[in-house]
Formats: sequence, C-alpha cells, structure tokens
Amino acid sequence: MSITMYQASVSVFIRMLDNLSVILDKAASHAEAKKIDPSIFITARLAPDMYPLSRQIQIATDMAKGCAARLAGLDVPSYEDNETTFLELQTRIAKTVAFLHSIDAEQINGSEEKSITLRTPSRELSFLGQPYLLHFVFPNFYFHITTAYAILRHNGVAIGKLDFVGNPE
Amino acid sequence: MSITMYQASVSVFIRMLDNLSVILDKAASHAEAKKIDPSIFITARLAPDMYPLSRQIQIATDMAKGCAARLAGLDVPSYEDNETTFLELQTRIAKTVAFLHSIDAEQINGSEEKSITLRTPSRELSFLGQPYLLHFVFPNFYFHITTAYAILRHNGVAIGKLDFVGNPE
Repeated sequence: MSITMYQASVSVFIRMLDNLSVILDKAASHAEAKKIDPSIFITARLAPDMYPLSRQIQIATDMAKGCAARLAGLDVPSYEDNETTFLELQTRIAKTVAFLHSIDAEQINGSEEKSITLRTPSRELSFLGQPYLLHFVFPNFYFHITTAYAILRHNGVAIGKLDFVGNPE
Repeated sequence: MSITMYQASVSVFIRMLDNLSVILDKAASHAEAKKIDPSIFITARLAPDMYPLSRQIQIATDMAKGCAARLAGLDVPSYEDNETTFLELQTRIAKTVAFLHSIDAEQINGSEEKSITLRTPSRELSFLGQPYLLHFVFPNFYFHITTAYAILRHNGVAIGKLDFVGNPE
C-alpha cells in the first residue's frame, strides 16, 4: 500500500484543472452579467510585476503537461501561449486534460527515481522524479491556480474555496 | 518503489512552512525598512470577504498539523489563533514545524486507507487517508500559503516565486 506516482500526479492535475475550468466559467458568466469586458479579467494582475490571469493559467497547464510527459518519457506537448479569451483558456485546459487522460498509470508509475532535467534560459535543473513532483511541480502548479483564483476573487467574481478544492470525498 | 505517506505529507509541509517563514521574514524587514506598521500587512486581505494574512497562516499551519496528527493517530495540537504580529506568526509556524519533526515516518506510513473524519460546524467529511492528503489537505494547504504570498506581493513586499517554491533540487 502506497501512493503511486500516477495517483499523485495525473489524478491530482485532472481534478484541479477541472476545478479551474469551473472557476473560469463563473468568471466568464460574471463578466457577461455585469457587462464587463472579459479581457479586463484576463489581463488582471495582483501586482504590476506579477503575471496576468492568462499567464497564470498557461503556466499551471504547462506544469501539468510537462510533469506528466516527463514522468512518462513522452515529448512535452507544445502550445502557442496566445490565449486571450475565456474560451481560448478553456480550450487550453481541455487540451491539457485530454493529454493527461491519454496517459496510462503504467506509463507514469515507477518514475520515482527517473532522472528529470529542465532547461530554462538561465539555468538547468536536475531532479529525480519524486522530488520533481512533490517539491517543484506541486508548489508551482498550486501557486498558479491559486493566483488565478485570487486575481478573480480580488476583482469581485463570486467564487469560494469550495470551487477551488472541489468535492474532496 | 513508491511515494510514502510521510514523504508526501510531513516532508512537504516542513519544506513549505520553512519557505513561508522566509517570506514572512522578508515582509517584516520590508515593513521595518519602509516604516510601515506591520499590522497593515498582517490584517491585509485581497478582497473584503477573504481572510487576512494572519488567518491564511493560521489555516495553513492547521492543515499541516491536522493532517500529520490524524494520519499518525495523534490528538491534533490546539492553538489559540490569536497571532497579531510577525513574531507570533513565526512562533506558530515554528511550533508547527517542531510538531511535524516530532512525528516519525513509521507513525504516518501505511495510513493510505486510514479512516479520517473531519467535523466542521456545518458538516462532517469522511475520507480515506490518501484522498484526504492528496485532494483535501494539499489544495487547502497550498491555497492558504499562496494567498499569504499574494497578499504580501500585492502590498509591495519584494518576494519572488523562488521564495515560495524554495530550492527544489
């Protein structure tokens, strides 16, 4: 009895991205009901040097698809990062969730000690699979979904923590 | 080879609470340098009906101590929830980290199917240990730490995502 890499990665990502999709739907409905230009929410930031809502969602989905692909030894799907509407952001989330569903547990399980290397413009990060998931992907993934939520809450969208956590039972 | 409940719970909580402590230290230094009353940060909120910084930290630590205690079959340590200064919030974090360090891996491991019941004023939630950790505690824990970070960033404290994620290697 133990937690598998699949349960701790793909299952978590799908749940949270589904919750994020519900939150974005509520934001889109709010914008429509209040006759507010949706781009005001999509470009909103909590600080001038923080990313806007659209980028928070791009990075959250990047974390999920990047993690699942790397653990499974697949190429990371590349997206254009050009979403500017709620519909385009929802499409990106749906595309990510479909990719996650396409991966079987057997492709991910056993990747605890798999060597993972991330190249960024400024540095190279090397991990084993388990610390990559628990100590890099999780904090980043939750950081960007929570910040997306916080941007919308700060701008008056009627969402609550239950929308974020989902039904945990 | 697999992820143990201890690795996915206590190890994650300690890392993230240590990062939170560094973030609060930077906020306290910022308040001092700018001669801003620290209570302005401690009572700051992202929306009028969201919790202030102090409560975000109380709930984040509650999630960590509650999860570790329940998985280990111990009484959940009870705190007074009366912190109003950076020092008191740091003390609460340190107390929580000390409690987490007092628990051995063997007390937590094997709790994947342990029956967990949470009673709130409005409802009772029942879980098995693993979904409790992955789908209830994680989103709540990260939600409140990220929101604490976002409150401080929104109010001009010079912190970055590396402070939040820590050194993942």
